Amino acid sequence: MSKAIFYHAGCPVCVEAEQQVAQSIDPAKYKVEFVHLGKDGGRLGEAESVGVKSVPALVLDGTVFHINHGADLSALKA
Amino acid sequence: MSKAIFYHAGCPVCVEAEQQVAQSIDPAKYKVEFVHLGKDGGRLGEAESVGVKSVPALVLDGTVFHINHGADLSALKA
Repeated sequence: MSKAIFYHAGCPVCVEAEQQVAQSIDPAKYKVEFVHLGKDGGRLGEAESVGVKSVPALVLDGTVFHINHGADLSALKA
Repeated sequence: MSKAIFYHAGCPVCVEAEQQVAQSIDPAKYKVEFVHLGKDGGRLGEAESVGVKSVPALVLDGTVFHINHGADLSALKA
């Protein structure tokens, strides 16, 4: 089982990507974790270190895929 | 069964997204079609009309998700 992390911030663009892209991932292949960076700011550093620049972003086995554009990570640090 | 279309142009960013994101989609939920807009320019109009601005892009039930950025659609029209 591979690991997928979906980073978001509750924004409309994030919600759309979560409901459609993240939910379409094959549960037989990936265990998906959902991380709300607005509420769980303690994980901003982790997201940044893996290469997340904006949300929503889907990290599959350590590779970052930015999906559309909701907010830059810097905007969540305020 | 819902319909997913993955538009790409064979670029490195596209290939990465195809191998990881498109291949992670649950085959029990979606039938995924792969369209190479560089080779199949006849489908550029269709991609544009659904809202694709750049590749790679994944269209799930008519909603466009741009995944990272490989090339603008305009660059494929030359």
